[in-house]
Amino acid sequence: MEHVQSLARGLAVIRAFDAEHPRMTLSELAARTDLTRATARRFLLTLAGLGYVSTDGKLFELTPRVLELGFSYLSGLTLPEIAQPHLEALSRELDESTSASVLDGDAIVYVARVPTRRIMNVAITIGTRFPADVTSMGRVLLAAEPDDRWPESLRPALAQVREQGWALVDQELEHGIRSIAAPLHSAAGDVVAAINVSSTTSSATLERIADEFRPALLRTAALIDEALRQVSPGRA
Amino acid sequence: MEHVQSLARGLAVIRAFDAEHPRMTLSELAARTDLTRATARRFLLTLAGLGYVSTDGKLFELTPRVLELGFSYLSGLTLPEIAQPHLEALSRELDESTSASVLDGDAIVYVARVPTRRIMNVAITIGTRFPADVTSMGRVLLAAEPDDRWPESLRPALAQVREQGWALVDQELEHGIRSIAAPLHSAAGDVVAAINVSSTTSSATLERIADEFRPALLRTAALIDEALRQVSPGRA
Repeated sequence: MEHVQSLARGLAVIRAFDAEHPRMTLSELAARTDLTRATARRFLLTLAGLGYVSTDGKLFELTPRVLELGFSYLSGLTLPEIAQPHLEALSRELDESTSASVLDGDAIVYVARVPTRRIMNVAITIGTRFPADVTSMGRVLLAAEPDDRWPESLRPALAQVREQGWALVDQELEHGIRSIAAPLHSAAGDVVAAINVSSTTSSATLERIADEFRPALLRTAALIDEALRQVSPGRA
Repeated sequence: MEHVQSLARGLAVIRAFDAEHPRMTLSELAARTDLTRATARRFLLTLAGLGYVSTDGKLFELTPRVLELGFSYLSGLTLPEIAQPHLEALSRELDESTSASVLDGDAIVYVARVPTRRIMNVAITIGTRFPADVTSMGRVLLAAEPDDRWPESLRPALAQVREQGWALVDQELEHGIRSIAAPLHSAAGDVVAAINVSSTTSSATLERIADEFRPALLRTAALIDEALRQVSPGRA
């Protein structure tokens, strides 16, 4: 079990770095990971030896090589590459941001994104996570899960999303932001991801969403589904 | 040293997954990582327990949670967030793709990107790596390194880039692709990243690059530099 613990701790050391803690001393890192200074030091030096951490001797920070780990996942994924040109076309047609995401537990994780201008207070990039239940893509993905896993409060909303094949979320994740999402399907017909168009309430009136966004979104989802069906067995 | 080896091996297991090997059996994984089946199994089960790997009992694959590791790096980085709206404005002004990258050893690593349409044969996403010496952003970043680290063959080109403050790369990374890059500076004046505009040779004639791309790119770099100077000490 030694391996188990060391790997888990090493990954926890990587995750301990974030927007509030981009650079840490050994003591700070040890405190944030509940490791002794000696243990934290051994992990940091291991990560430095592997090129994932750099240090000036006092402060430690992650290097861009860490992105390789996420890239191992992304490069094995057919979906973002297939979806990207369709999302770009959709974004240009509507002049709005488009994205694709997958479900991971109770969260959605962005796997592709075409931004036009910043509309959210937080920067969204590949790997960004949001709670599934307050996002349009999350609702689409939850609606495809067995309904015994649905949160009680969302049952009527998710039943409707499953029935109609798209989800609109109006200012629930953030005030002034509206987004509409539709599911993507594997060749076997399973929902494997969701795509959306997101905009501001001033640009995306409910009429414009119904008349412009929804048909363009559903048409794009159908095109991506068709492309995914042509990718023989492969993982989506 | 047990910790060292276990963490290194665990990260190698994550990296063993790629576009050609998105799903592997235990035997395949063991062969690709030079681990025994028993050891590979222990790492896979550890990663599965941590939510980074999923399995149907026979095939193993990475989960989107792996993106969190890269996100630890990105979220600690001020630069992409500051640069992104400026890159979006530049992309809209020229109707071309724009990007930002940093140097990691001999490679550039993309940390921000605003795609318009796919022009490269490979998909570029955050985390994508290219050899620095054949890319415009790489030349800008290499030009800022001490010149005793310059490859002999690039000395005249890098000296010119350092002198003029921008780099043009014409179809070296890929036939039909032209790109022009400029450096970004920290508050202390060090080159910390590069931004570029990339396009096709048909859209981006050398005249258009000189008359339109270069002034817009340099103006954007100056705006981002100004914004970075206002971010007190912080890491760029």
